[in-house]
Amino acid sequence: MHVDGLSEERIDHRFKGLPPDAEGLTVGELAAERRSIFDGGFTTPVLALSAPALEHNLAQLEEYCAKHGLAFAPHGKTSMAPQLFARQLAHGCWGITAATAGHVRVYRAFGVQRIFLANELVDAAALRWLSDELAADPDFRFVAYVDSVRGVELMDAALTHRVDVVVELGAPGARTGVRDEAVAHQVAEAVAAARHLRLVGVAGYEGELPVKTEETVTAWLRQLVALARELDARGRFAEADEIVLSAGGSAWFDSVAQVFDAVDADDFSRPVFKLLRSGAYVTHDDGHYRRSTPFHERVAGSLRPAFRLWAQVVSQPEPGLAVLNAGKRDVPYDLGLPVPQVVRTLSGAERAAAGMRVVKLADQHAFVELDEGAGVEVGDWVGLGLSHPCTTFDKWQLIPLVAEDGTVVDFVRTFF
Amino acid sequence: MHVDGLSEERIDHRFKGLPPDAEGLTVGELAAERRSIFDGGFTTPVLALSAPALEHNLAQLEEYCAKHGLAFAPHGKTSMAPQLFARQLAHGCWGITAATAGHVRVYRAFGVQRIFLANELVDAAALRWLSDELAADPDFRFVAYVDSVRGVELMDAALTHRVDVVVELGAPGARTGVRDEAVAHQVAEAVAAARHLRLVGVAGYEGELPVKTEETVTAWLRQLVALARELDARGRFAEADEIVLSAGGSAWFDSVAQVFDAVDADDFSRPVFKLLRSGAYVTHDDGHYRRSTPFHERVAGSLRPAFRLWAQVVSQPEPGLAVLNAGKRDVPYDLGLPVPQVVRTLSGAERAAAGMRVVKLADQHAFVELDEGAGVEVGDWVGLGLSHPCTTFDKWQLIPLVAEDGTVVDFVRTFF
Repeated sequence: MHVDGLSEERIDHRFKGLPPDAEGLTVGELAAERRSIFDGGFTTPVLALSAPALEHNLAQLEEYCAKHGLAFAPHGKTSMAPQLFARQLAHGCWGITAATAGHVRVYRAFGVQRIFLANELVDAAALRWLSDELAADPDFRFVAYVDSVRGVELMDAALTHRVDVVVELGAPGARTGVRDEAVAHQVAEAVAAARHLRLVGVAGYEGELPVKTEETVTAWLRQLVALARELDARGRFAEADEIVLSAGGSAWFDSVAQVFDAVDADDFSRPVFKLLRSGAYVTHDDGHYRRSTPFHERVAGSLRPAFRLWAQVVSQPEPGLAVLNAGKRDVPYDLGLPVPQVVRTLSGAERAAAGMRVVKLADQHAFVELDEGAGVEVGDWVGLGLSHPCTTFDKWQLIPLVAEDGTVVDFVRTFF
Repeated sequence: MHVDGLSEERIDHRFKGLPPDAEGLTVGELAAERRSIFDGGFTTPVLALSAPALEHNLAQLEEYCAKHGLAFAPHGKTSMAPQLFARQLAHGCWGITAATAGHVRVYRAFGVQRIFLANELVDAAALRWLSDELAADPDFRFVAYVDSVRGVELMDAALTHRVDVVVELGAPGARTGVRDEAVAHQVAEAVAAARHLRLVGVAGYEGELPVKTEETVTAWLRQLVALARELDARGRFAEADEIVLSAGGSAWFDSVAQVFDAVDADDFSRPVFKLLRSGAYVTHDDGHYRRSTPFHERVAGSLRPAFRLWAQVVSQPEPGLAVLNAGKRDVPYDLGLPVPQVVRTLSGAERAAAGMRVVKLADQHAFVELDEGAGVEVGDWVGLGLSHPCTTFDKWQLIPLVAEDGTVVDFVRTFF
């Protein structure tokens, strides 16, 4: 990958929260100044990404995948940050997962060589571009989902270069993906009849099962393996070099490891390539994923929440209410509201944020309910824990990477 | 304003939905090609901004403000699009309203000369930048809210150049802003004692009243006028050239016009400057603002929803369900879900979207419930009506501006 160019980008009005007095410096130059996020001229609200927490999380999933013989293509839609993709690849990842053709374009612009598109793609303009990209680079490895005969036909009509596809297995009441084996076999037959497609496996996403328990997730994963075996038995992977089995978000990767561990290679005609695709692990969070990770409770390992949003109290207009200058444009709100963690006064004193709750967000404000004696003042900075990495990253285009003591050591650029 | 440079920007992977085969063209060059949004190589999902609807809306508020003697500083946080600010100013607007110091930086980067910051600003780094900006340009007119003595003191301590402020009037249970006259007078006294602040009026936002009816909004607006009169009687505007009265989002501008119309200039020691700040009107919408605009029903005038999001059906995995390739990253979901309006088949035939409802969004997918016989196919484009302009604009960095027939005539750049 080639991400070094990102440090040449100029700091300016495009990047909220960055120091106004750094205007015109390059990202690399500002990082070299090693400013403090607290008194280095950053303006609130500003999102901080913890460098040690990030490194911890990268290492944890690398270790987990190595231990369980899983290849790993973390879902890049979470961060859309090429610098993080480069670090994920440096931590042993096979490739990066994408959700849209737009994501694939971003990945390719920064030289990602192996991309798993965990989605259907029937857009003719995007498929023409993809054909050209594959034709221009024989080392570009690409795999996408198919889940309908019509989708296969639309793909094949637009493509001019061979594309590897996997049948997506869904479940009744879930999102995309075939609901049963009969449709899977029809889709596989359509792929076999297509000029530009090659079937290489079966994949899906357990996170969209309508009921998710260890039992339902495990049963569905076994169904996925069984479908691959049946397609293999019918000769549907005749053109493939290996058979891809892929699943796994950030909540059930232990079940994926367990079921994929149990796969008997002798049951398949070709080597089996087991691919995990978790994305949210990279920053983890203080809400949804804190509650749903299998680490800590179900299996050995740990993740650390890497994001903290610093907002400032701009108003305390009546007893029991403080208003912060961060709103829907700055923090995620789709899987729970932010949670005040620490209060930092203008003198630099920090304390736990006791008796404070974010109860509502406007576009540019957060409403914080205060218990009596919460002792917050206009001007205080409030550090917020967040829920849902995906809708955090997409609100920030250049994110300070901070050391434990608040020193900004680098910046992470996102592309949404 | 200087926005012409935006047409020199290069089309690339940063801008989702734009034609992959336009990579490397400038925005101006691509606009000059007059491509169709439907078969010009744009990829789904893609947001379309209607050029005629936009022009209609710009003209409607211009006319309304002229008729009612209101100056207009539309809230720029809605679009964060300098090209739209330039058009708003060309349509007679006095200036542009901002919500954060970051907004003010973007506005200044493109040469907005009059900015109303409808928020408290106590961030020292931002206030230092603001001081420098005011010192460097004597023609830069800036006004901000104050609502607490402490806020005034923090501003004054950080500023090195005089800043005009207005007391923000709130209401019990609302957002920021003083809750009663007593605090307003304390804040005014603090401003009088400050070295770098000058009190020039009273302002607020009726959209945050806990109960909003014509009665409560009108009563609150009258309170705002009365507060200004009382502050004036106490000599608090002694240094001001004119007295600013400002209120008004996109839902109650008729009440603002009515109450401000009734202001008797003879009651004030100086000329009264009545400033409206509606923002969402610029694109209007098919949801929240369609229901809340005073146009159509309460007063003469009309607005047209200017946004349509085109997504593609990528999967139809079970009866009654279609899945589109647009999700939380592409459409607003905080004031209602998108509504399917039209279906466009790959042959270009369009029909009303009957029997289709978006019932859920994932990060990159929309779940559409289908009535029997809805007749949707994988590959179809679905045109979605949206609710909430502010959380639409902020998901798109370069938005095609389309003529009635789908010809893309320009692109609007946003800065979030």
